[in-house]
Amino acid sequence: MPIAESGKLGKDVRIFQPELVNLYGCSIGDNTKIGASGEIQKNAVIGACCKISSHTFVCEGVTIEDEVFIGHGVMFTNDLFPRATASGALQTEAGWKVVPTRVCRGASIGSGAIILCGITIGEHAMVGAGAMVTKDVPPHAVIAGVPARVRGDVRTKEKKQ
Amino acid sequence: MPIAESGKLGKDVRIFQPELVNLYGCSIGDNTKIGASGEIQKNAVIGACCKISSHTFVCEGVTIEDEVFIGHGVMFTNDLFPRATASGALQTEAGWKVVPTRVCRGASIGSGAIILCGITIGEHAMVGAGAMVTKDVPPHAVIAGVPARVRGDVRTKEKKQ
Amino acid sequence: MPIAESGKLGKDVRIFQPELVNLYGCSIGDNTKIGASGEIQKNAVIGACCKISSHTFVCEGVTIEDEVFIGHGVMFTNDLFPRATASGALQTEAGWKVVPTRVCRGASIGSGAIILCGITIGEHAMVGAGAMVTKDVPPHAVIAGVPARVRGDVRTKEKKQ
Repeated sequence: MPIAESGKLGKDVRIFQPELVNLYGCSIGDNTKIGASGEIQKNAVIGACCKISSHTFVCEGVTIEDEVFIGHGVMFTNDLFPRATASGALQTEAGWKVVPTRVCRGASIGSGAIILCGITIGEHAMVGAGAMVTKDVPPHAVIAGVPARVRGDVRTKEKKQ
Repeated sequence: MPIAESGKLGKDVRIFQPELVNLYGCSIGDNTKIGASGEIQKNAVIGACCKISSHTFVCEGVTIEDEVFIGHGVMFTNDLFPRATASGALQTEAGWKVVPTRVCRGASIGSGAIILCGITIGEHAMVGAGAMVTKDVPPHAVIAGVPARVRGDVRTKEKKQ
Repeated sequence: MPIAESGKLGKDVRIFQPELVNLYGCSIGDNTKIGASGEIQKNAVIGACCKISSHTFVCEGVTIEDEVFIGHGVMFTNDLFPRATASGALQTEAGWKVVPTRVCRGASIGSGAIILCGITIGEHAMVGAGAMVTKDVPPHAVIAGVPARVRGDVRTKEKKQ
């Protein structure tokens, strides 16, 4: 595992099965847990006290604030029109611009969700498993579906449990 | 690979690329095949003569009976409202309750399906690729879509093939 | 990593984190890049100048032509009615027929898309992230959704950028 080539790991970061994880050039805050079989790219920023579950891909351009839960098999993106080549040659980093995404403090993203780029997911929002997130998510919203739509407010739902 | 820390592997279990698999504390029945890049958590129970394909996540609380097919990239879940923290500190196992899921004998789950927790998938049911399973599936039902709905009966479909 | 047991790797193929990749018996063209945590099965054929991203599963029966982009966590399939067993014993390769899929030159498939088998994705088509592809995709079409539907033409969309 090539953890942290020029990356920054905080204190007490816990990486499960590090030989199955691909981290490079990213920044991870204190006490965060990272699951197996994931990839976190260079210039991704992950806050403190987060849980990033297995099989998840966090790409360059993604900022995850503190206390965020990311489920298993979540896919972030940073390019709305990806192509392998430009004028017949492999595209290089010079050929495209990273579109940023932000997940705000205390939000949760369910397993298998897909997050289009250029989006902000608000504080404490709850994104359902398998949701396809195509636009900004308001703080405290519960969203689900394909494409994801607001289904409620976590302040109501969490009170009921 | 930390296979079977206190887990139970049956006879003739075949694990493909075991160095890419993350199994711990689970129980796997005789003759079952496990694909690469998967994770099966402690207290998950998998029956005999199953095929668990690559990139699949089977969490604690899941019981898979005999002769079940699980496709690639299938995500099980065990918590409907996951959070990273409680009162500012990382949640521990004490902080949440595992919601169980059961896949009954002879069922098949297509690749990329996502299975919410608290659900029973009936005997010989066929869950389509990419289905989002949000409620119990009757025995022999063919289901597909997001959210998944019953589309037919396998006893009719399999006869046609 | 069991790369290329009887497989064919072209010139300047670049495999990221080869110890996390599972390739066997497949053919990969010149200059193609393969991401970590992926699996490419025997008899899959991948062209030149492609990008195959992390966490992607390419099964037997899939042909990917030159200059194709495949996102992260994309799942191909080759069997519409998979079962673990036949008459109580594990199914063997003799028990089912691989249904082929073709991705034509210059197409792009977004992250998390699921591709049913027996399908042709036309030249330069753009499949959105999270799309569930259930039928042939015309050349140059932009498709998205579950099930995926045509949303436009890349020749219009790419001009606008």
